[in-house]
Amino acid sequence: MSEQDTQQDSPSGKDPLVIFTPSGKRGRFPAGTPVLQAARSLGVDLDSVCGGRGICSKCQITPSYGDFSKHGVTVHPDALSDWNKVEQRYEDKRGLKPGRRLGCQAQVLRDVVIDVPPESQVHKQVIRKRADTREIIMDAATRLYFVEVEEPDMHEPTGDFERLAKALESQWGLTGVTAELSLMARLQPVLRKGGWKVSVAVHHDHTGAAPKVIEIWPGLHEGGLYGLAIDLGSTTIAAHLTDLEDGTVKAASGVMNPQIRFGEDLMSRVSYVMMNPGGDKEMTQAVREALSVLASELAEEAGIDPSLIVEAVVVCNPVMHHLFLGIDPVELGQAPFALATSSSLSLPTAELDLTTINPRARAYILPCIAGHVGADAAAVALSEAPEQSDDLVLIIDVGTNAEILLGDRTRVLACSSPTGPAFEGAQISSGQRAAPGAIERVEINPETKEPRFRIIGCELWSDEAGFDAEAAASGITGICGSGIIEAVAEMRMAGILDGSGLIGSAEQVGTPRCIAEGRTHAYVLHDGSAEGGPLVTVTQGDIRAIQLAKSALYAGARLLMDERGVDKVDRIVLAGAFGAHISTKHAMVLGMIPDAPLDKVTSAGNAAGTGARIALCNIGARRTIEANVRKITKVETAIAPAFQAHFVAANALPHATDPFPELGKVVTLPKVSFNAGGEGGGRDRRRRRRG
Amino acid sequence: MSEQDTQQDSPSGKDPLVIFTPSGKRGRFPAGTPVLQAARSLGVDLDSVCGGRGICSKCQITPSYGDFSKHGVTVHPDALSDWNKVEQRYEDKRGLKPGRRLGCQAQVLRDVVIDVPPESQVHKQVIRKRADTREIIMDAATRLYFVEVEEPDMHEPTGDFERLAKALESQWGLTGVTAELSLMARLQPVLRKGGWKVSVAVHHDHTGAAPKVIEIWPGLHEGGLYGLAIDLGSTTIAAHLTDLEDGTVKAASGVMNPQIRFGEDLMSRVSYVMMNPGGDKEMTQAVREALSVLASELAEEAGIDPSLIVEAVVVCNPVMHHLFLGIDPVELGQAPFALATSSSLSLPTAELDLTTINPRARAYILPCIAGHVGADAAAVALSEAPEQSDDLVLIIDVGTNAEILLGDRTRVLACSSPTGPAFEGAQISSGQRAAPGAIERVEINPETKEPRFRIIGCELWSDEAGFDAEAAASGITGICGSGIIEAVAEMRMAGILDGSGLIGSAEQVGTPRCIAEGRTHAYVLHDGSAEGGPLVTVTQGDIRAIQLAKSALYAGARLLMDERGVDKVDRIVLAGAFGAHISTKHAMVLGMIPDAPLDKVTSAGNAAGTGARIALCNIGARRTIEANVRKITKVETAIAPAFQAHFVAANALPHATDPFPELGKVVTLPKVSFNAGGEGGGRDRRRRRRG
Repeated sequence: MSEQDTQQDSPSGKDPLVIFTPSGKRGRFPAGTPVLQAARSLGVDLDSVCGGRGICSKCQITPSYGDFSKHGVTVHPDALSDWNKVEQRYEDKRGLKPGRRLGCQAQVLRDVVIDVPPESQVHKQVIRKRADTREIIMDAATRLYFVEVEEPDMHEPTGDFERLAKALESQWGLTGVTAELSLMARLQPVLRKGGWKVSVAVHHDHTGAAPKVIEIWPGLHEGGLYGLAIDLGSTTIAAHLTDLEDGTVKAASGVMNPQIRFGEDLMSRVSYVMMNPGGDKEMTQAVREALSVLASELAEEAGIDPSLIVEAVVVCNPVMHHLFLGIDPVELGQAPFALATSSSLSLPTAELDLTTINPRARAYILPCIAGHVGADAAAVALSEAPEQSDDLVLIIDVGTNAEILLGDRTRVLACSSPTGPAFEGAQISSGQRAAPGAIERVEINPETKEPRFRIIGCELWSDEAGFDAEAAASGITGICGSGIIEAVAEMRMAGILDGSGLIGSAEQVGTPRCIAEGRTHAYVLHDGSAEGGPLVTVTQGDIRAIQLAKSALYAGARLLMDERGVDKVDRIVLAGAFGAHISTKHAMVLGMIPDAPLDKVTSAGNAAGTGARIALCNIGARRTIEANVRKITKVETAIAPAFQAHFVAANALPHATDPFPELGKVVTLPKVSFNAGGEGGGRDRRRRRRG
Repeated sequence: MSEQDTQQDSPSGKDPLVIFTPSGKRGRFPAGTPVLQAARSLGVDLDSVCGGRGICSKCQITPSYGDFSKHGVTVHPDALSDWNKVEQRYEDKRGLKPGRRLGCQAQVLRDVVIDVPPESQVHKQVIRKRADTREIIMDAATRLYFVEVEEPDMHEPTGDFERLAKALESQWGLTGVTAELSLMARLQPVLRKGGWKVSVAVHHDHTGAAPKVIEIWPGLHEGGLYGLAIDLGSTTIAAHLTDLEDGTVKAASGVMNPQIRFGEDLMSRVSYVMMNPGGDKEMTQAVREALSVLASELAEEAGIDPSLIVEAVVVCNPVMHHLFLGIDPVELGQAPFALATSSSLSLPTAELDLTTINPRARAYILPCIAGHVGADAAAVALSEAPEQSDDLVLIIDVGTNAEILLGDRTRVLACSSPTGPAFEGAQISSGQRAAPGAIERVEINPETKEPRFRIIGCELWSDEAGFDAEAAASGITGICGSGIIEAVAEMRMAGILDGSGLIGSAEQVGTPRCIAEGRTHAYVLHDGSAEGGPLVTVTQGDIRAIQLAKSALYAGARLLMDERGVDKVDRIVLAGAFGAHISTKHAMVLGMIPDAPLDKVTSAGNAAGTGARIALCNIGARRTIEANVRKITKVETAIAPAFQAHFVAANALPHATDPFPELGKVVTLPKVSFNAGGEGGGRDRRRRRRG
């Protein structure tokens, strides 16, 4: 019926020509051919759930009339058949946008140009806020199909499910669909209630395993299908409730990972298991329950029935991966850091005790890259696609563990680095989580050594008029991760710290804010003691904690650069807490990340979460990341001698000047040094800290 | 390395010739080739679990020495390499039968003839008691593999499971194995305990879905693998605990189906669901719990760890099928008798709440043929293979429902017939289940009209000396299904019944044993009232119940014969209670089954249970029955007008004489008739019975 090209090639040259935009696909079809049918013949991406029965309205198109010289046609007003009863019924009931027709009803009569609007495309592009990211094209694993099922016949006895499967095959080309017992148990009343017309949600496995019927509704289901993109962090669990039809985020929320009560960082959780046999089961239950609660809260926020959540994609680090899956993570706590399983997993969410969503929903867990480089790093790789980069890109995702990727089209390397929780405000004397009252931004005047800061929940700087009144609600309670990084960097730029990280005395620095604390000094950022508030200081111990963390991060990046044989990278992508909260400039002052031109340093936000969303919205992305993960060169920091060397070398604080003066104040300070040991003696200092 | 034929074709004609018996396969191999390797190259069926490591002893072979003129070789005593240390270690530890060698250790040095004993064959033939049945060749879905797994390597990080999968692929050719989460959780400690040498049970899906690792043990697992063949009847649940290596039955047991408390027959259980919403869930739980208990009892009886039970095959009628699977059976109670699903099912036993066996065990449920013709009928078809019969065979399986198959190589037809529970002693005035004290055999002297009988639990007939003493233990308590059938048939042959099924009066028959009971008469089989025991009679109501049941059975068989266009069949196979308990002769006297020469009537025992065992032992049988079921012509008795006609016509009791006098006493009776209506007025009599 279709002819895959222009009239010159056509044996029936007088059939009307149909040109689809924006695809430009064209062909000739006999007069009377429905537009939907023409679109399908040509492989034009025009949606339909009801299969052309005029009830789902997914196939809306806009015919264009007039002279289309670039296409070589003139479209007459009678190019399509008249507006029909089905369209009128739909118009009366729901309304169609002006100029729209239903593609399954409008028939081609003369040459015509037909525009497929974005919302009528099956493989819609997801609108994303960042301009610099790759497109997400909708191609969800779970899709809705409307089918008419043959009624049972005693003379040709087959099961209702077998006739449903036959309908899916004949009407949608789906072969060999299967279903769980619980779906079989729902089947018969729903088929009869729908008068043998039903909508089914079918999950397509990306590995090619048999498609599974997840849910069934009588008649046309118009409630939508939803999925959860879950970023299961050591500290925070974040989830995006996503529309599986157009990729829009209907609700997003995060909760604390309840496993924190078993240990702040991953290794302390592994230790908990070692010390408490069965402790892994407690942690597994805790995180699964938290996810179930989070899912139902998101559904409530979005105002949807939680049973419409039919998929979940989960990304996480290896320890969280094992603890979520119910696998004892003890092997991840010791060399050779063997994962129980590293491949992606596709399984029922019921096996993960996600009790609040559809009981037949499916989970997809991204693959792990190595024992220390998890599915979260894979998700970052999926989101940032270093393997598609023409220039050499360094991608750093900072959490309690840092995931680091380095690569380009030729080769991608990955490692993780145990930065510890200092960047999140933990293990800092005045540290606290990011919450109202926490100091998050810091500036120190290099002349006066006086600080100004901002706290979370208040738009004003501390030296601006009205700050005290606005800050009164929360008070000034402590300093969070981004605040401590800025404070340390500003202290260095203001000459309060020397290159080895030592805080000078009041005399050395020239400010009474440097106070003695045992054998070392501390810098007073805020003294609320007069009003009964806290004394917020940055102690020598805090400096050391930040130095250890940033050394680990830097050493990881350098290790990958060594492996790749380069001294510098073309660009840097900062993901996770970086970019969102941590100031790039201050990070570079601290030497957290290798130097790079500031315009070559970009922020990717929650790249792991974005990777989870991509895998949720596009089934092909699952195959992509699984293939890419196999190609990534894994570098294990724990056993690389070079990592130790880089770690020690990175202990110093290199910049005594603002590396990007054009962005703010220009500061040039003399080299300062308070201790005899000079710069770079990281090992000595570490020993001293232990003493 | 191998050469697939004789020396003429061989380029290296001087290599030793190896001839395997009983297969006759032969080839030349370089001196030093292990026998196991030669066997594998030639496709000789020689077992090995450890893959030739000399630890499993499955590859035992017997070399033959001397002159083998029929094979054209002379085997010298030094044809194989010397007995080695590995063989000596095995001999010391376990002992080898005289003349045996380990095929993986013994190397071919000169021409040799090697016998593979039956127990060393992978595809062993299962020894079955009946001579007339098809072979079962062992080819179980779940098999044991010993593998050596690569240790984890930080430089090439992969999960332990991925390395196990790789080992199964490289050492056993199994590709793409998967596992459930709970296996992943067991994996790491077992791999380390076994020093990276483990045994795994792998389930192969007959549909070609990915093989699944079901269980893992450190080192060589020698505890065996077991499966359950389950015949889930309306009244009785029977299970055979079967060794998956050689097919032997380790324990067999049956329990009452606890659903009986919801209704004796299937339709009363369906009614229970209709009257009690949620009643199906109660029944599902009851039968699943009974099966779990039965499984653990069987394991205990056989002295095996129940976690070694890794498979279950289930056959049952459609209502039991749905109730077991957790599907409301209400649609099966009304036309068009639509099954929720008719295909075979392969699923985790955990979904069926079989909690006492291996938590990752797999269940296989045979396909249903139609809404009234279930997986039990499919199992009978698998066991009796009518599609392979050269002559036309009628297969009848009597339970509370009767399954009837008719066919040969050209075509097979199937139906079920609602005989009701009368054949099992239910709905009979003195009826009882088959238990000690129940009358099970009856003879009536046609001259004196005096009966003699046997009861269950006593070897003597009631008129033999010592009977009273032996029967005293149980007493004479009632009459069971086989007893009532014999009683009615004997009453007919003795002239106590007329052709329409009416019992004559004492005067008409000439015996005081015919007593008045309302408007009809009853025959006293046993009067224990003097000793305080029961009066066991056969009432007119009992006769009617048996007539209805036998008419239904006969009508079903006739309906299939009509469909096939035949008046008689070449042979009859009786399965289920038939043959095992019901006398073939008496069944034919009653007209339960079409007439056939007695030597063409055989008994198949529990054919449905045998079908379950076949499907358990041989994965190919699953494909076979699934293909055959699709080809069977389903005949629905409930809507066939011919069935009603046959039913009415079959109401009469045709034989007034023993149809097989050569087998016993010769009886020729005058035609007897006690009522004016004469023979054949079935409809009148049914109306009267209702009045």
